[in-house]
Amino acid sequence: MHNIDLHGIVAYPITPFREEDGGVDADTLVRLIDQLIDAGVHAIAPLGSTGESAYLSESEWRHVVETSVIRVARRVPVIVGISELTTAAAARRATFAEEAGADAIMVLPTSYWKLGEEEVFQHYARIAAATRLPIMAYNNPATSGIDMSPELMIRMVREIDNVCMIKESSGDIQRMHRIHELSGGTVPFFNGSNPLALEAFAAGATGWCTAAACLIPEQTLSLYAAVRSGNLAAARQTFYRQLPLLQFILKGGLPKTVKAGLRLQGLDVGAPRHPVLPLDEAGCRALATILGQVASGEARSAA
Amino acid sequence: MHNIDLHGIVAYPITPFREEDGGVDADTLVRLIDQLIDAGVHAIAPLGSTGESAYLSESEWRHVVETSVIRVARRVPVIVGISELTTAAAARRATFAEEAGADAIMVLPTSYWKLGEEEVFQHYARIAAATRLPIMAYNNPATSGIDMSPELMIRMVREIDNVCMIKESSGDIQRMHRIHELSGGTVPFFNGSNPLALEAFAAGATGWCTAAACLIPEQTLSLYAAVRSGNLAAARQTFYRQLPLLQFILKGGLPKTVKAGLRLQGLDVGAPRHPVLPLDEAGCRALATILGQVASGEARSAA
Amino acid sequence: MHNIDLHGIVAYPITPFREEDGGVDADTLVRLIDQLIDAGVHAIAPLGSTGESAYLSESEWRHVVETSVIRVARRVPVIVGISELTTAAAARRATFAEEAGADAIMVLPTSYWKLGEEEVFQHYARIAAATRLPIMAYNNPATSGIDMSPELMIRMVREIDNVCMIKESSGDIQRMHRIHELSGGTVPFFNGSNPLALEAFAAGATGWCTAAACLIPEQTLSLYAAVRSGNLAAARQTFYRQLPLLQFILKGGLPKTVKAGLRLQGLDVGAPRHPVLPLDEAGCRALATILGQVASGEARSAA
Amino acid sequence: MHNIDLHGIVAYPITPFREEDGGVDADTLVRLIDQLIDAGVHAIAPLGSTGESAYLSESEWRHVVETSVIRVARRVPVIVGISELTTAAAARRATFAEEAGADAIMVLPTSYWKLGEEEVFQHYARIAAATRLPIMAYNNPATSGIDMSPELMIRMVREIDNVCMIKESSGDIQRMHRIHELSGGTVPFFNGSNPLALEAFAAGATGWCTAAACLIPEQTLSLYAAVRSGNLAAARQTFYRQLPLLQFILKGGLPKTVKAGLRLQGLDVGAPRHPVLPLDEAGCRALATILGQVASGEARSAA
Repeated sequence: MHNIDLHGIVAYPITPFREEDGGVDADTLVRLIDQLIDAGVHAIAPLGSTGESAYLSESEWRHVVETSVIRVARRVPVIVGISELTTAAAARRATFAEEAGADAIMVLPTSYWKLGEEEVFQHYARIAAATRLPIMAYNNPATSGIDMSPELMIRMVREIDNVCMIKESSGDIQRMHRIHELSGGTVPFFNGSNPLALEAFAAGATGWCTAAACLIPEQTLSLYAAVRSGNLAAARQTFYRQLPLLQFILKGGLPKTVKAGLRLQGLDVGAPRHPVLPLDEAGCRALATILGQVASGEARSAA
Repeated sequence: MHNIDLHGIVAYPITPFREEDGGVDADTLVRLIDQLIDAGVHAIAPLGSTGESAYLSESEWRHVVETSVIRVARRVPVIVGISELTTAAAARRATFAEEAGADAIMVLPTSYWKLGEEEVFQHYARIAAATRLPIMAYNNPATSGIDMSPELMIRMVREIDNVCMIKESSGDIQRMHRIHELSGGTVPFFNGSNPLALEAFAAGATGWCTAAACLIPEQTLSLYAAVRSGNLAAARQTFYRQLPLLQFILKGGLPKTVKAGLRLQGLDVGAPRHPVLPLDEAGCRALATILGQVASGEARSAA
Repeated sequence: MHNIDLHGIVAYPITPFREEDGGVDADTLVRLIDQLIDAGVHAIAPLGSTGESAYLSESEWRHVVETSVIRVARRVPVIVGISELTTAAAARRATFAEEAGADAIMVLPTSYWKLGEEEVFQHYARIAAATRLPIMAYNNPATSGIDMSPELMIRMVREIDNVCMIKESSGDIQRMHRIHELSGGTVPFFNGSNPLALEAFAAGATGWCTAAACLIPEQTLSLYAAVRSGNLAAARQTFYRQLPLLQFILKGGLPKTVKAGLRLQGLDVGAPRHPVLPLDEAGCRALATILGQVASGEARSAA
Repeated sequence: MHNIDLHGIVAYPITPFREEDGGVDADTLVRLIDQLIDAGVHAIAPLGSTGESAYLSESEWRHVVETSVIRVARRVPVIVGISELTTAAAARRATFAEEAGADAIMVLPTSYWKLGEEEVFQHYARIAAATRLPIMAYNNPATSGIDMSPELMIRMVREIDNVCMIKESSGDIQRMHRIHELSGGTVPFFNGSNPLALEAFAAGATGWCTAAACLIPEQTLSLYAAVRSGNLAAARQTFYRQLPLLQFILKGGLPKTVKAGLRLQGLDVGAPRHPVLPLDEAGCRALATILGQVASGEARSAA
């Protein structure tokens, strides 16, 4: 298995679409990637939930992988998201990601039919057999409909060669405690639930997988820095400052809200794909207010 | 809009796969369709959840539509299932179903991202614009992750031309009451939750959408006949007789259990697609016992 | 164990309170009991959830038991509700109910702390040891916080002498199926979820435990009569006619809404006890409209 | 309103019962109170959930209040728990607590019937009118069946004079974030969910309300000390060390497990009241192992 040092702020770019034909807008994607790396994020994760991975055709997906890997150019690690309904399609994409030069893949076991533990295990095992890349097991029951227990994920880390990291997006801090307990603190886990960022770091998370870095990279980085230096008061302060935005993008849906936010910041990345609609006008106004408050450090007025 | 008289037992065939290469086994599919029609079911619904619609490539999906329509040959109505992540893909399939000669389509608004009511509404409206076929709005939160309220579905029936029927698979009888109330009993609703078959008919359901017809067609038909003739005692008796099977296939997952049952009955339809695994040995034994008991009318021993 | 033939409409009177001092208004209670029996209900169940059993002092509770038993005077069976936090208090009340001449008791295992199956079982066993009265095990997780599985309740019917009936108020029709399956149809179960009245009878319920009988006794009785005579269409018609009321009283809380309804009908029964507040004005207007529509058979306008 | 400085480790003693007659064992209670204060806890909270408040008669409850206040003798603040079904009973106890010399009361709005926001608000307002003591609003939906939103609790702090603190036991860290946001960080909130102790402090909790202090006072105090000194790494270490115990007592039920633990440590406090049963033998063995590991700092072996 390849080695990878993944930690800190793992940034999830959206996938820009062209207004004229709805196709992938690679030019804007590379601008966004550069923005993120220039800001100092520790890794780039294209084609996550935020990247509308599930709504891309296979050729579009490959195009985004290639564009991302080439543009990042080893400045930071690239971890590519895979969330396919069939095991065969997921394995095919894993192989492609390796060939394209990605550093790791993040696999979400999405499925129409509820899967038993053995089915999830074999899904990962077959994907792992198709690549030598390190694999991050990704639990996100709200979007995937499958809830992997800490026990199952730790078992996969132990028994499937390349599975070596966990991303927890259930928003339940007790899952992270359990991962720590089951592994004696040896398996790195990443937080994928934005409003849990402060507490996940308190509980020992290695990193924070976040689309918020697209909009407020400095704030996400300052939270990580405060935690690393053991300054809990500073961490709490910067966390509460950015929390309204973290809540907004979680509640509104990441591609929709992050795309609206980037447009407000001057980067036109197009609309999300149907059936997802663009953020409506009232939502855009609320988002603009929140972004302004986060930037200025102004306290959010109580609702 | 085309007219359609849909009622009674709407049978959902599985999609058979060949053992050698995993491809669609059209020969076995036509045998299964003939079996169902010979038994007396009132409609055929290929490519539902049971038909692993979500796991087929677009060309496979088209092949199953064409094969089904041609084989049914207007003996009963054909209603084709569509559950695509993007609106564009769903609309494309709707158009194809009409060209292929289907009588209606059943649309499940599956999505990676949670959809708001307006997003679901526009999803249906765009699909409806792509076809003149009658559309059955299909609510199945457990598989699709989207829960459409009775209010939303009735609104779509009123405001979108071709949407004219509802399939409710949430298993909550109160949803059916609400549909009846909101429409004054004028919008036909179908039950898609197998263990609710008796009560859904009591509440006024027009039909029962069921994969159980693949395994025990006579029993499903006798429940419908008893209800139609107002014989509640007989309906209750035949319902409780088949209930263990209805529970088993719901709990175990329809493609997996129905495929196992058909093999037990002598029709080899192959395995479901990965990540779904075939029913394990203990499951097959339990299923064989249940099928025997349903056939013989023997009471199931208490657990 | 004493014998009891309980079936049909089991009416749950509210407990009237005097306006001047908030005490139990026994005069109005006997009027309500007479009204119910004159209308033809098949049993009287004082001190259920509807009767605010949980909010009465022990002496008030005893007073209501005695008043009810004496007034009913064996015209129909009297089944007395018990829902105490401690086993000792519940057992004491069971003994009292028997001494006072009740025909049966209905026991709800309410508890501050979640109870394990063994704790629930021993709670019933100790109460049963304190009386020879037949006991109805009553499952109502929404109010009691304890959810007894069909398996546990059937086990108690088998292993504890006086436990011989089940009241299911979870609103989940599958629980009734399970009770039927586990007991081979031999254990009588009663439905306590008003909006499930039609389907519970379809599934084989012996009776309907309902506070709606306080407001629309004829309608509840006509549903039972239609089901008994096998007239499913008539049962469905009368059910949908009364459904808006059944939904309203469930959603609004039984003591609050039934007390408001009785006042609208001319019987002043006082307010529920704090912290429960009387139905507000908008609620009273909505209730008056619904009661008028149920009485006139007018269809409810769609929301 | 009286002033109170409540912070840090708020210890919840169990209520000991005598083996011979099941009555309150005041002698053992004072020993336990002394133990807690000697260990250094910052406040004593008799008659919480842990104290089986809900299972005591009114005179027993008064006896425990008086015993506690007298024994604590102002060494630390005493905050008394009240969780009564009726508002009248709760107000009566509030008045008594003040007369007995308590420093504050903690009110849990338990109810048989679901309460609306206005009902909860008036419940608190009426209790507040019966005392000048500071009131801690206590949200614990799992035991009380009522879930108070942060919005409601902050509104009560603003509009009801004595309500000035919040105890959150839902286990949802986002509630604490919301309390912080709504009040601009000005309303002190306490954590009542043991396995959330570390993260609640990270989020800014003023204190930790815990029965764990009965068994491992030093550990709970060292967590608070580490957080206060900004040593996040030390806080995490001591938290993970005691986490298995925190999980065990939450899952097993506080009175049952804490009473078993005290007996293991040599203090015989009797059994909990029926229907709650004593911890069974296997549970006691598991608890002994966990207590040993917490004491020795030995890592818990992975399950």
